[in-house]
Amino acid sequence: MLMTDIIAKKRDGEKLNAEEIQYFINGYTNGDIPDYQMSALLMAILLKGMDREETLNLTMAMMHSGETLDLSGIDGVIADKHSTGGVGDKTSLILCPMVAACGVKIAKMSGRGLGHTGGTIDKLESFAGFDTGISDEEFIENVNKTGISIIGQTANLDPADKKMYALRDVTATVPSVPLIVSSIMSKKLASGADIIVLDVKAGAGSFMKNEEEARELATELVEVGKRAGKKTVAVITDMDEPLGYAIGNALEVEEAIEVLNGEDRGELSELCLELGACILTQAQLAENEEQAKAILQKSLVDGSALNKLAELVKSQGGCPDAVYNTELLPKSAVQLEVPSLQEGYVEHIAADGVGLISMQLGGGRATKESEIDLSVGVVLNKKVADAVKSGESLGTVYAKTAHEAQAAAEKLRECYKISSTPVIKPKFIKGIIK
Amino acid sequence: MLMTDIIAKKRDGEKLNAEEIQYFINGYTNGDIPDYQMSALLMAILLKGMDREETLNLTMAMMHSGETLDLSGIDGVIADKHSTGGVGDKTSLILCPMVAACGVKIAKMSGRGLGHTGGTIDKLESFAGFDTGISDEEFIENVNKTGISIIGQTANLDPADKKMYALRDVTATVPSVPLIVSSIMSKKLASGADIIVLDVKAGAGSFMKNEEEARELATELVEVGKRAGKKTVAVITDMDEPLGYAIGNALEVEEAIEVLNGEDRGELSELCLELGACILTQAQLAENEEQAKAILQKSLVDGSALNKLAELVKSQGGCPDAVYNTELLPKSAVQLEVPSLQEGYVEHIAADGVGLISMQLGGGRATKESEIDLSVGVVLNKKVADAVKSGESLGTVYAKTAHEAQAAAEKLRECYKISSTPVIKPKFIKGIIK
Repeated sequence: MLMTDIIAKKRDGEKLNAEEIQYFINGYTNGDIPDYQMSALLMAILLKGMDREETLNLTMAMMHSGETLDLSGIDGVIADKHSTGGVGDKTSLILCPMVAACGVKIAKMSGRGLGHTGGTIDKLESFAGFDTGISDEEFIENVNKTGISIIGQTANLDPADKKMYALRDVTATVPSVPLIVSSIMSKKLASGADIIVLDVKAGAGSFMKNEEEARELATELVEVGKRAGKKTVAVITDMDEPLGYAIGNALEVEEAIEVLNGEDRGELSELCLELGACILTQAQLAENEEQAKAILQKSLVDGSALNKLAELVKSQGGCPDAVYNTELLPKSAVQLEVPSLQEGYVEHIAADGVGLISMQLGGGRATKESEIDLSVGVVLNKKVADAVKSGESLGTVYAKTAHEAQAAAEKLRECYKISSTPVIKPKFIKGIIK
Repeated sequence: MLMTDIIAKKRDGEKLNAEEIQYFINGYTNGDIPDYQMSALLMAILLKGMDREETLNLTMAMMHSGETLDLSGIDGVIADKHSTGGVGDKTSLILCPMVAACGVKIAKMSGRGLGHTGGTIDKLESFAGFDTGISDEEFIENVNKTGISIIGQTANLDPADKKMYALRDVTATVPSVPLIVSSIMSKKLASGADIIVLDVKAGAGSFMKNEEEARELATELVEVGKRAGKKTVAVITDMDEPLGYAIGNALEVEEAIEVLNGEDRGELSELCLELGACILTQAQLAENEEQAKAILQKSLVDGSALNKLAELVKSQGGCPDAVYNTELLPKSAVQLEVPSLQEGYVEHIAADGVGLISMQLGGGRATKESEIDLSVGVVLNKKVADAVKSGESLGTVYAKTAHEAQAAAEKLRECYKISSTPVIKPKFIKGIIK
């Protein structure tokens, strides 16, 4: 088999068979196929597409490019969740303890963040001593014992995806449905859960610029998951403003704890309940969505979800005190309110812009090697459709220095678009694909 | 400017401007832009196309990626010729001395061959002592003195094309009109001639599989040449069988000498006269095609074209005796006739197959480093539409050993398709684009 023949076949719009897909994934992973051939193929895939069978074959070949996690030692139904990424997205911090409190096992591998804030793994490190690098054996033992464990991605999980994603990033081959689907699903399948719920973002700040594209991506993700034998559900959500109010690692942990304490945080709460309901119904722990949501709500009210977070932190060597007293979380030196200069209604908040502010304050990584500051970030006070008076606070900036806080405050103000007439908030959950 | 933005722009079907094209050609030539980004861009160009302005800008940027030849020291009109490549194509060996004998200056850079036989440079080395590596000064002096000089391509001519062509070859990005046009025309423009004639092959063995595609390529070549200020003409020719009768370096030189001696070699003669007429009319040495052909025919009959070849050989240090006595050219040890096993009419001769035989006998290069044997090859006795009797010779194989000759003879027989009913030869010259 020749790589040039495979590239030419896709270039000419033909379908690649399982052997051809296996050949280039193996060859690229082990270094036999050079980057320059892979990038030509990736561009041909982006422009000529792949059908569902090709996407499934690509996903399976990538999944098997490295180790896969064997979760057979865990009793019960195991769920995993993935989001296509969003500013202020602390959903996993809420959803995982909540569904674990309701009886679904969570054995989750999570990434570190690159860009606006850290990933779930970084955020969990806001709890002093929390260890995300425990062994596979401890991981499985913890899940069996407490129902939940969250660790960093092991080095040899889906190496094909690591190499391909880095290449796609520098060759303008990211926005392709079959490539996005295979990248997400190969990692999820290698991680071994029975139920996979996906949060697919639609909007200016995400891969999929509109609802139609998001629906197409969600459909392919779900179909590939199902054909690979997993219970898979996708929720399509709006991403035209940050999710919830807090952006920044410890600040997001604090907001997550508030939701786990039963406080309502608008779309953030809505999303966690929706994703949780998908998991409980797929796990057959609830007959329908309503029943599932009632069970989930109960876990928030009776403190069992919050206690589950504390158990998670404790079982991985962290100090759980901050779960019950958020004053113990990392705190920034400077806090600065950002008053509005206009009166009106919030029409739009540039999610990307807010994410960039958090990163520039030190809360995100510009490169893989960057150290992040867990304490900094932004807490919004006003969200889309809220009325705002001149001088009223749009949000609070958390920074290391007064100088940095001042610069961030000015940028935050620029992220807000204020309308003189009332604004109708767009529907947040745009659809569920099962 | 970011290379990823340029790739994304072309991926999305947008037009690249002159600055963007300049940026990636300069960056790729000097090594700032890696192969993997260039190959993604090349695939995007292949699949999304480039308009004429982009192709011209690409051509000019490539032309200026290295040194350009300054031919201002040459008096008179200078012509250059390019062929998109064909088996048995010894046109330059005939055309160049012929038009030089008629008063047009030939200052030609030519490549070494890769594949079925050597290039013009290799073939000229059939004349003992012929030096294709003379200095630029000698080159120009020779053209002024004798009207003709042919040398190998200087190392720093169009380095962008050298690097891009090598990359295209291994990334399935060769068959793209803008990429073929810019590759050919950037080299021709860097070589400095006033008139450029192009032989664009159409048929199974060439880039362009049919006449329509060949016409599209020819039109773009001519338009880009004209916009770059050169008199440019393209002749579209059929390439469904080898050109002429000889395939192999010294064997092709011998056939070229026969044509220069006034012998008729069918399409080979027809093509040389047609290309020559294009040059003479563009140089305003003839009022029309008929007059031009008469002038060219005279140079064959009166011996001036053949003498010009001898002058060329002598001025570059070679021994011109073989021009007048082809027995002095390199000769293979073994010659083997290949009798037909069938009776009928030649329907098809697989040009690629015949080329491969010549290469395997040692007449072509498998890699850039291969040494070639100038003496070996094939001389066809029957061409398409010829009647053939069982036992009659299809051709002669010229080889180093009897064993190799035998293997080649069997393969040559397989290249012939014999029909029981008479065959009508397709039109050879399919069009002229000016």
